[in-house]
Amino acid sequence: MTKQYTETKYFNLPEGETFTLESGARLKELKIAYETYGDLNDEKTNAVLVCHALSGDAHAAGYAEGENKPGWWDTMIGPGKAFDTEKYFVICSNVIGGCKGSVGPRSINPDTEKPYGLSFPIVTIRDMVRAQKKLVDCFGIEKLLSVSGGSMGGMQVLQWAVEYPENVVSCIPIASAYKHTAQQIAFDEVGRQAIMSDPDWRSGDYYGGDPPSRGLAVARMVGHITYMSNASMNKKFGRMLKKEKLGYEFTSEFEVEGYLRYRGDNFVRRFDANSYLYLTKAMDYFDLQRDKKLAQVFKDVKSRFLVVAFSSDWLYPSEQSKDIVKALKMNGKDVTYCEISSAYGHDAFLLESEEQAKLIKHFLNRSFKKTGSK
Amino acid sequence: MTKQYTETKYFNLPEGETFTLESGARLKELKIAYETYGDLNDEKTNAVLVCHALSGDAHAAGYAEGENKPGWWDTMIGPGKAFDTEKYFVICSNVIGGCKGSVGPRSINPDTEKPYGLSFPIVTIRDMVRAQKKLVDCFGIEKLLSVSGGSMGGMQVLQWAVEYPENVVSCIPIASAYKHTAQQIAFDEVGRQAIMSDPDWRSGDYYGGDPPSRGLAVARMVGHITYMSNASMNKKFGRMLKKEKLGYEFTSEFEVEGYLRYRGDNFVRRFDANSYLYLTKAMDYFDLQRDKKLAQVFKDVKSRFLVVAFSSDWLYPSEQSKDIVKALKMNGKDVTYCEISSAYGHDAFLLESEEQAKLIKHFLNRSFKKTGSK
Repeated sequence: MTKQYTETKYFNLPEGETFTLESGARLKELKIAYETYGDLNDEKTNAVLVCHALSGDAHAAGYAEGENKPGWWDTMIGPGKAFDTEKYFVICSNVIGGCKGSVGPRSINPDTEKPYGLSFPIVTIRDMVRAQKKLVDCFGIEKLLSVSGGSMGGMQVLQWAVEYPENVVSCIPIASAYKHTAQQIAFDEVGRQAIMSDPDWRSGDYYGGDPPSRGLAVARMVGHITYMSNASMNKKFGRMLKKEKLGYEFTSEFEVEGYLRYRGDNFVRRFDANSYLYLTKAMDYFDLQRDKKLAQVFKDVKSRFLVVAFSSDWLYPSEQSKDIVKALKMNGKDVTYCEISSAYGHDAFLLESEEQAKLIKHFLNRSFKKTGSK
Repeated sequence: MTKQYTETKYFNLPEGETFTLESGARLKELKIAYETYGDLNDEKTNAVLVCHALSGDAHAAGYAEGENKPGWWDTMIGPGKAFDTEKYFVICSNVIGGCKGSVGPRSINPDTEKPYGLSFPIVTIRDMVRAQKKLVDCFGIEKLLSVSGGSMGGMQVLQWAVEYPENVVSCIPIASAYKHTAQQIAFDEVGRQAIMSDPDWRSGDYYGGDPPSRGLAVARMVGHITYMSNASMNKKFGRMLKKEKLGYEFTSEFEVEGYLRYRGDNFVRRFDANSYLYLTKAMDYFDLQRDKKLAQVFKDVKSRFLVVAFSSDWLYPSEQSKDIVKALKMNGKDVTYCEISSAYGHDAFLLESEEQAKLIKHFLNRSFKKTGSK
C-alpha cells in the first residue's frame, strides 16, 4: 500500500468575529488546526468528525511530510478501513486549548503580542465542540454523518449529540464518560500538581525559557499507568530487569521503570505543559448531567449511538459507558452497546483496532444508508 | 477510658557489632526505634510483633506525650482490643531505612559524621525483618506468638514466616502481596520520580537545607489515590466544589483536589523524602517467589496463618492474598483466609477495625491456646 500523505490546514474566524467561551471570556482569534481525509460528496452527507483524546492532535491518519509514524488513529482511518476514506470525508481538528496548531496557552495573545500562558481563558469540552462546529459550518456541512472519538474525544461526541441534535446523524463515544468522577479528577490533579510544582513552570510563563519538563514527565507517567491495565503491565513487563540482576541502587532497574521514564521524556518533547493543564481541567469540568437526571439530558438527542467500552479499562470503566446507554434507552433512543474484551486497559481504544473497526464500519454503513445517501 | 501514654525506646547493636545487609553493604550502627504495649509473660510466649506500612512508625498505639492523635493502629491495640494488651505483649518497631527513629538515610553516617543521604545502603524487606529479629532476641523471646501487619507490614510478616520458621507461631498478613507487580512498581516509581525531579532533592543531599517538599507532596498524592477506592472517593467527594460554583481558574476547585493537596502538604511535615525512596524501593524489590514456585517457598513454614484482604483494595487486590493462601494450602499449612467487604480500598486495613478486630482476636486466642500457655 502506498503511503498516504496528509497536510494540516488552519481555520480562522472571519476578521473581527470573536468567540465567547462558556466562562464568559472571549477569544479574538479562533485558529483551529485540522486535517481531512477522503472527499466530501455533493450532498455533503458523508462527513465524519473524529475527536482526539488528551495527547492527540489533528493528524489522525496518514503520514505527515518527512515522518515515519502515521497519525494516531491510522489503523481506523483510510481506504477500506473503519472510517473508509473512499466513502467518507473524515475531519479531525486539534481542540482549542491544545498545543498542536489550534489556539491555546502557547499562542500569541493579540492584545499583548506575547504567549498567553495562564492568561489563556479556561476552555471546556463544550467550548471545544462549539469551535469544531464553526469549522464544520465552513464546509457547508449541515449534518455530520458521525462524530466519533475515545476518552476526551468521547466527551466531545456526547457534547455534540446534546448541543447540536439536528446536526448529527450518529455518535460513537468510545471508552469515555458523561462526567469525571472524583478519582478521575484526582489523577488529573496529581498531573497538574506535578507540573505546577516544577520551578521551571514559573506560573505558566516559561515560553522562551526552559519548559517544566520534569513536572510534565511525571504527569505523563501517572497518566500512562492509568492507561494500561494491571494485566497488560504484567504481561509486558512483569518484574523483568533491565540488567542481569538487581544493582541495589536508585537507577531504573525494572523494565517498567525504564518504560515510564522513556514515555515521560518522550512526551515533553511533543507536548506543552500548559496545554496539559488546560485539557485535563476541561475534562474535570465535564459534566453533562449537572443537576439534572441523565435521562433528561438526552431527551432531545436525535442521533443513533454506538457506545464502546473495554473490559480492562479501569480509568474509564465500562460502568460509565453503561450509564450513558441506560439514559439513552430510557428515552427510547437507537443505541448499541459493545464492551470489547481486551487486556490493554484504556489504551485499547487506540490498540484494539480489529474488533472496533468491524463494529464501526457496520454502524457507519447503516447510519449512512439511513440518510438515504448512496 | 483513660489515655494510655507511650514512649518510644531505642535498641542498638552491641558496640563493635555490625549488620550486613542483603546487598552486602554493612551498617556500623543499627539503631531501631520501638514501642511496647502490655507485659511480657514469664514464659515469654505472649509477644506479638506488629509491622508498619510505608508511612507508619513505631508508635502504633496510645498517645505520645503532648499529642492528641493516638498511634496508627490504636483501634486494634490496647486493653480489650484485638491485640489485647492485658493479655499480650505487643512490640512495634520503625523499619530500618525509615525516618522515625530507626537508622535510615537521615541518620548520621559514623564514617563521615554527616547524614547518609543516598550513601545509605539500599535495604530490603528481609533486612528490615532481620533487624527486627535482633530486637526481638534482646527481649529473650524465642517464639513470637504472632507477627502481624498490613501492606508493607504484611510483606514483613511473610518474610518472618519464611526466614524464621522456628520463631513464629502465627502470622497475619493483611492487604499485602508476596511480590510487587509491574503496576505496583510503576506507582512507586512515579512517586520516586516526583521526588527526584524536585531541584531541592539535590541527589538526596538536602539535609540542613530545604527538603524536596513539592516532589514528596506529589508522591503522596499519587499514593493517596491508590489507597482509596473509586467508590469511597465518590462517596466522600464526588464532584463537590469547595466554592459555590466553578471559578474557571487553576485553583483547587473540587473538594477532592483540596483533599489531595492537604494530604500532600501534611505528609511533607512528617516524612523524609529519602526514606520514601528507600522504603518504596524495598517494596519493589520484594519477591518471595523469585525463580521458585511459590508453594516451594512456603514448604518449611511452621506458623498458622490468617490472611486478610479487602474487597475494594485495588492496589493490593485480593487475588494477591489468595495466591498466598493457595501456596500455603498446597503445603497443607493451617491457613484461614478472609476477604472483608469494604468500600475503603487499601486504606481499609487502617479503617475497618470492627470486623478485622474480631477475626484477629479469635485467631490470636486460638494461636495462644495452641502454645499451651495460659
